[in-house]
Amino acid sequence: MEAYRCDRASDTHTVMPLAVVLAESTADVQVAVRWAAQHGVPIVPRGAGTGLSGGATTVAGCIVITTERMRAVQVDADTRTVVVQPGLLNAELKAEVARHGLWYPPDPASFQICSIGGNVATNAGGLCCVKYGVTADYVLGLEVVLADGRAVRFGGALIKDVAGLPMVKLFVGSEGTLGIITEITLRLLPAQPAHRTVAAWFDSPAQAAAAVAEIATGIRPSMLEYMDRLSVNAVEDHLGLGLDRDAAAFLLAGVDELDPHGRDLARIIEVCAAHGARSAAEVEPPRAAELEAGRRAAIPAVEERGRVLLEDVGVPIPLLGELIAGIEAISRANDVEVAFFAHAGDGNSHPLVVFDNEDRDQQTRAERAYGEIMTLAIRLGGTITGEHGVGRLKRPWLRSQIGDDALEVERRIKTALDPAGILNPGTIFKETQE
Amino acid sequence: MEAYRCDRASDTHTVMPLAVVLAESTADVQVAVRWAAQHGVPIVPRGAGTGLSGGATTVAGCIVITTERMRAVQVDADTRTVVVQPGLLNAELKAEVARHGLWYPPDPASFQICSIGGNVATNAGGLCCVKYGVTADYVLGLEVVLADGRAVRFGGALIKDVAGLPMVKLFVGSEGTLGIITEITLRLLPAQPAHRTVAAWFDSPAQAAAAVAEIATGIRPSMLEYMDRLSVNAVEDHLGLGLDRDAAAFLLAGVDELDPHGRDLARIIEVCAAHGARSAAEVEPPRAAELEAGRRAAIPAVEERGRVLLEDVGVPIPLLGELIAGIEAISRANDVEVAFFAHAGDGNSHPLVVFDNEDRDQQTRAERAYGEIMTLAIRLGGTITGEHGVGRLKRPWLRSQIGDDALEVERRIKTALDPAGILNPGTIFKETQE
Repeated sequence: MEAYRCDRASDTHTVMPLAVVLAESTADVQVAVRWAAQHGVPIVPRGAGTGLSGGATTVAGCIVITTERMRAVQVDADTRTVVVQPGLLNAELKAEVARHGLWYPPDPASFQICSIGGNVATNAGGLCCVKYGVTADYVLGLEVVLADGRAVRFGGALIKDVAGLPMVKLFVGSEGTLGIITEITLRLLPAQPAHRTVAAWFDSPAQAAAAVAEIATGIRPSMLEYMDRLSVNAVEDHLGLGLDRDAAAFLLAGVDELDPHGRDLARIIEVCAAHGARSAAEVEPPRAAELEAGRRAAIPAVEERGRVLLEDVGVPIPLLGELIAGIEAISRANDVEVAFFAHAGDGNSHPLVVFDNEDRDQQTRAERAYGEIMTLAIRLGGTITGEHGVGRLKRPWLRSQIGDDALEVERRIKTALDPAGILNPGTIFKETQE
Repeated sequence: MEAYRCDRASDTHTVMPLAVVLAESTADVQVAVRWAAQHGVPIVPRGAGTGLSGGATTVAGCIVITTERMRAVQVDADTRTVVVQPGLLNAELKAEVARHGLWYPPDPASFQICSIGGNVATNAGGLCCVKYGVTADYVLGLEVVLADGRAVRFGGALIKDVAGLPMVKLFVGSEGTLGIITEITLRLLPAQPAHRTVAAWFDSPAQAAAAVAEIATGIRPSMLEYMDRLSVNAVEDHLGLGLDRDAAAFLLAGVDELDPHGRDLARIIEVCAAHGARSAAEVEPPRAAELEAGRRAAIPAVEERGRVLLEDVGVPIPLLGELIAGIEAISRANDVEVAFFAHAGDGNSHPLVVFDNEDRDQQTRAERAYGEIMTLAIRLGGTITGEHGVGRLKRPWLRSQIGDDALEVERRIKTALDPAGILNPGTIFKETQE
């Protein structure tokens, strides 16, 4: 049970759960929920445990219900949909639908280890989302076990369906606070279009951020990723890809469905050059795959430098440069290392505050920096979380982002669906009524 | 006030409202809602009044709050977003953002007369939605006046934001039952890509439906519309475009972002031909614009034949042929004319039951056919409404589509946000608790 105390977020406040329920079916989930409801026991729902905001870390006296063994998948190529249980990994789903010539776009950097259920619970994003949208854009139907143990279906294999309140959309991103998702119907696209890749290296973050802002106004790249020097060096230490260790910022951009003249590709290179890139050029597919893998490895690579507090802040795209400058100031003021990379085309970034677990003072400074970065994002009109969810770790900052009234309205929804507050208490909402 | 009794749906049960509030600001809406809350007076929120499901028809003792005078619009090209008040028409918004080289995709057939507020309230679709998604896919932020008169903001100009429950998504498509939307932040795309158009004519609906099903499995058209013989003839009577009056079915398909070889365009023509099209060919842009305008004129054209009961049923795309055959049987059995056209690539169709207002018996048969078509769609695993909303006219069929449990859960959400039930009573939910 030790392995079920926490997810991938650094949370030092976890406890041993009362029990872990390895559900193999919707009925298993229902039995566990009914028992918990009867005894007033808190439930922590869990997918693959790769969450980064502490949405699946334990609370006192809880049971964990994990859907990791619920892995059935059924592709329907005729409707271009798939019905899948929540425990299947994102990469496994992608592979399964690819066998039918189809594509499930959302691609969290962790797609090889994260589950679809977790993706739906957090409305996960990824690299291609800048063009192809996030998890919510693909969810057509859900089966959900409610707080009283009933299993209810919403939606189905219909592209458009507005009959009744948009309940499917309400559950996607609700982080296990309103129900436990036990089956998902997803929309699929025809196989991924061919894409081409640009790599650009800059001498300053401001240059790269300005290039991103300009690209985002007029082009629809299929990927637009940013990495700072620290992240590039961490990845280089980790994978040895021959990256430019001296550059201050790296952009990795993709374009697909090109016009015959490769106009968008040329435009991206042009914009990067105009903003002072030391180099900006198309890279061939094998190298592009390496660079993309390098970007995806950023979190584990930075984790080799120490414990990390992982941010997921977002800002309006033109303020990306201001966010980066602000984070550098926070890093200096608190004397802690902050690695920065971003789904830049969405304005969604992942500053990683690195600290030494053994150094109490540094940990305190890291925790302070972690909060200051969220406060900075809020001040810039941004969000504390773009794709990872609030979980337990970001909850203290939620009120200052969304305000008293919005939080009160959300609490009413929560109470309407989970009056006893047994579903994932402490995630999004305080454990006790505020 | 007579003009505010009903929207564009044929509803014979409307009453004269107590008053019509022509709100010019959020504060105006708040004043009216607070007064209504204090006196327990039902509120019917209204946009341009072009709704097709009776979501803005009056109920006994109500006031109507119309947002038609709230028309401010502010484009931010840097973030590729626009902040707009609900009364602006869809076409006006499109024109305004086009001046900045930007594009707001959702395009209901009625885009020239329907308002953005109504589009958001119903999660409206349109012709390009088969590739570019529906209204909900573009709404980033909302200001909403709640049932107690508070104005609350959710979301903002952020592409990705998962902080808290997905309240923006909950309000889009809630048909004025949870709050009155007073400001909307929309995501925009770069100017519309060039597109090419195919027109295909068939001798049988089954052939056309089979072509649609095959196209939908492997291609992403930017438009895929279907019209039956009756609709084509009604449009031809109305506009005189030189359409093929004898064909049993007409498909109008668009493709954009083509690969250099025009592969998708050729493939659509090939699929139509393989399914027996009497003709299938690319049409030049001026003719394409005429044909698209013809499709958009289908509702007013059919309305010239009599009063209509307008359906909005959807089915999984492979069942489109079965839906059409079933509707033909219902038409014959009830001896009423049913025109049929569809956003075929989404499986979303608009059968129009035509009747003579003066002929009580025919009206009764038309009403019976109207219900039978929804029942047929539900039996095929479909929906009673793909993009128009439930309103008051489709509410009696909602329970049999979504089931007791789902409706009970939705009622809990409704009660949590509008405990006194003053917001648009009779739409989605029965006026009195079930």
